[in-house]
Amino acid sequence: MVAPLRLGLAGLGTVGIGVVKIVQRHADLITTRTGRPVVITAVSARDRQKNRDADLSAYAWETDPVALAQRDDVDVFIEVMGGHDGPARAATEAAIAAGKDVVTANKALLAHHGQALAEAAEAAGRVIRFEAAVAGGIPVIKALTEGLAANGIKRVMGVMNGTCNYILTRMQSAGLPYEVVFEEARQLGYLEADPNLDVGGIDAGHKLSLLAAIAFGTKVSFDAVELEGIGAVSIDDIRHAEDMGYRIKLLGVAQLSGRGLEQRMTPCLVPSASPLGQLQGGTNMVVLEGDSVGQIVLRGPGAGEGPTASAVMADVLDIARGIRLPTFGQPAATLATPIAAKSATPAPYYLRMTLLDKPGALAKIATCLGEAGISIDQMRQINQPGDEDDDAIVLFVTHKAAPADISHALSHFAATGVLVGDPVAIRIEEV
Amino acid sequence: MVAPLRLGLAGLGTVGIGVVKIVQRHADLITTRTGRPVVITAVSARDRQKNRDADLSAYAWETDPVALAQRDDVDVFIEVMGGHDGPARAATEAAIAAGKDVVTANKALLAHHGQALAEAAEAAGRVIRFEAAVAGGIPVIKALTEGLAANGIKRVMGVMNGTCNYILTRMQSAGLPYEVVFEEARQLGYLEADPNLDVGGIDAGHKLSLLAAIAFGTKVSFDAVELEGIGAVSIDDIRHAEDMGYRIKLLGVAQLSGRGLEQRMTPCLVPSASPLGQLQGGTNMVVLEGDSVGQIVLRGPGAGEGPTASAVMADVLDIARGIRLPTFGQPAATLATPIAAKSATPAPYYLRMTLLDKPGALAKIATCLGEAGISIDQMRQINQPGDEDDDAIVLFVTHKAAPADISHALSHFAATGVLVGDPVAIRIEEV
Repeated sequence: MVAPLRLGLAGLGTVGIGVVKIVQRHADLITTRTGRPVVITAVSARDRQKNRDADLSAYAWETDPVALAQRDDVDVFIEVMGGHDGPARAATEAAIAAGKDVVTANKALLAHHGQALAEAAEAAGRVIRFEAAVAGGIPVIKALTEGLAANGIKRVMGVMNGTCNYILTRMQSAGLPYEVVFEEARQLGYLEADPNLDVGGIDAGHKLSLLAAIAFGTKVSFDAVELEGIGAVSIDDIRHAEDMGYRIKLLGVAQLSGRGLEQRMTPCLVPSASPLGQLQGGTNMVVLEGDSVGQIVLRGPGAGEGPTASAVMADVLDIARGIRLPTFGQPAATLATPIAAKSATPAPYYLRMTLLDKPGALAKIATCLGEAGISIDQMRQINQPGDEDDDAIVLFVTHKAAPADISHALSHFAATGVLVGDPVAIRIEEV
Repeated sequence: MVAPLRLGLAGLGTVGIGVVKIVQRHADLITTRTGRPVVITAVSARDRQKNRDADLSAYAWETDPVALAQRDDVDVFIEVMGGHDGPARAATEAAIAAGKDVVTANKALLAHHGQALAEAAEAAGRVIRFEAAVAGGIPVIKALTEGLAANGIKRVMGVMNGTCNYILTRMQSAGLPYEVVFEEARQLGYLEADPNLDVGGIDAGHKLSLLAAIAFGTKVSFDAVELEGIGAVSIDDIRHAEDMGYRIKLLGVAQLSGRGLEQRMTPCLVPSASPLGQLQGGTNMVVLEGDSVGQIVLRGPGAGEGPTASAVMADVLDIARGIRLPTFGQPAATLATPIAAKSATPAPYYLRMTLLDKPGALAKIATCLGEAGISIDQMRQINQPGDEDDDAIVLFVTHKAAPADISHALSHFAATGVLVGDPVAIRIEEV
């Protein structure tokens, strides 16, 4: 029998305890599948006294995760503490410096420091694995890095924040405004301590930047993700979109244009009948498009003890089996695809605006669109029952238009003097 | 630069040419991702003169795939000829004996000889990889073997024959009977030369048996798959199922019961709103359920040049990267989970029958069900407009019942003397 693979587990929250349970429950299964026992030797967490749902008595305790990462009896350092600086970063760096492999669920850490960590790990001959950092239990890092390795990747899309998808689908099904559902989600414990990580799209943007690095051979570039959260999505737009056969999702999209990698994490309309459109509640979905394989859709739980621990342990089992790849699927030094300053890929857009009841109002708007080179695929005027004035809501679905042309048209709407309030423009991602 | 990985490609049909195109188009990408050039050195096919959509002039030609498999300048033997005996088997065995790794798209070969081939490969220190053999471009073998390796697998389900799903969804959408759509599919070239491989469920059964071996640690046991094709699925049942919120799919299910592994490839009802129910046309879907991860759904193209070649090349890239696992994810000698003689896992059933217009007819049927221990969840009686006699179609959805109890009840229906024709019973798989 070969020597066991020894794990040092930093973080004993939900995910950490999930890892403990798998290691304990499936010791035999893991040994059969990897040919090598996998054991936990030491753990760390802030509060040793806290009551936890697992028997930790056999494991050495470290208060400091850096000390854990440096222990001689640890081969793989598992970081499930979270936080993109502070102890998580220090301990991960210490682990690599001490010659340990690293498995992490920490998307923020890698989104901010992934390139430097990957370079350090590769220089030290160690691996950093992060299946759990993206889309929870869905083995999407593996599918993209290995399963689709022979493809030029054309586009990666994903609904990767379950809380946002819960809020948007609940708004739709219950007909409730954002603020009400946000409060529901808070009370249900679905939101991060800083809710903007969820509803601001930051958490999902972190994940997108990691997928994009693998898919397109770029350095992780979270700062280049065009981020827009769901706070401005109105129940009106959800309803109008549904009437026209679309649903609104916080959708991440990464693709190459002539100017380099584009990354967006923004509300988008997607066809209601598409797999993305059908996705309800907290479930995650990632869509991978390759030049040979076409479109692959992966769907599953994006969070929670079991799913996230499953992903952490998949990485551990890979290490036990001797599977060793560069962090982002190719050597960090070769990650060189340029990043586009701003999205330029055309798409249809959904536009909503309220027009004053003035002669020629619609013509003025249509002229703005025409002058920006935008042609109209569908137009609907909606009379508001019970509305005392005669202002009209007008919806457009445009043909494909460049984002800059949409911005240009919107900036000229104001000068027409026929709009009430601000117009809304939401990209329609063709899926 | 390390030495290139040299491929010998046996079979120059659709998939083989797809492999050639990827190797030629993505030489740089592959080298970047694997750290090693991947080249084709030699090919074989029956007809050298045939006009093919690729430049093969740089490759040595072998008429005999066995000779190809034994060439000194081949490291990996790629078998995309097909057929579960004959040249495919002989060449695969020769490749292993000659110390080559094997990548195959041949589900029939592995379903029939997988255990012996796996044992031979492992004894020789070689690998056999077969991502392309199951669900085309979907990286499901990898997701199951590696991505979900830390899970006890609870159930594997799949719609894995695109032709059958095309036929069933076309019947539904066009309201056409099986025979008409079968003929359409034949004319569109969707059917194998022996259509029973498709519509008899054999092809999909092969795939299920391979997934089951990995998921549950059994020897591949295609002979133990309960097979039922789609030839008896009637447009009436498709319509009635739709009315009750279900769709009919040729669904593979593998799961453990107390008596061992159960494998079924049969028409099933699934909820219309589920991912499986939503699956239209030739697309494939595999559902993996693990004790930690919960439910993962994978969707993508199940056939075709690009998708299948993508999967073949994923295996090649794994080998180039040094990823080497036992064929079925654990050593072939440890594949020992018992196989159940027959499915015993209870499920709800859909029952359709035509009752004579006799007093007490329904009571007699209900008595048969009750005596078999089957309770009824829903019952509908449908009057047939324009039907001159007053026979009635009666539909039942039962509560969960054991397959043996359903068989028992059906066998007693005949003696009641109140049925017109044979009753139909279709399992409802809860997804």
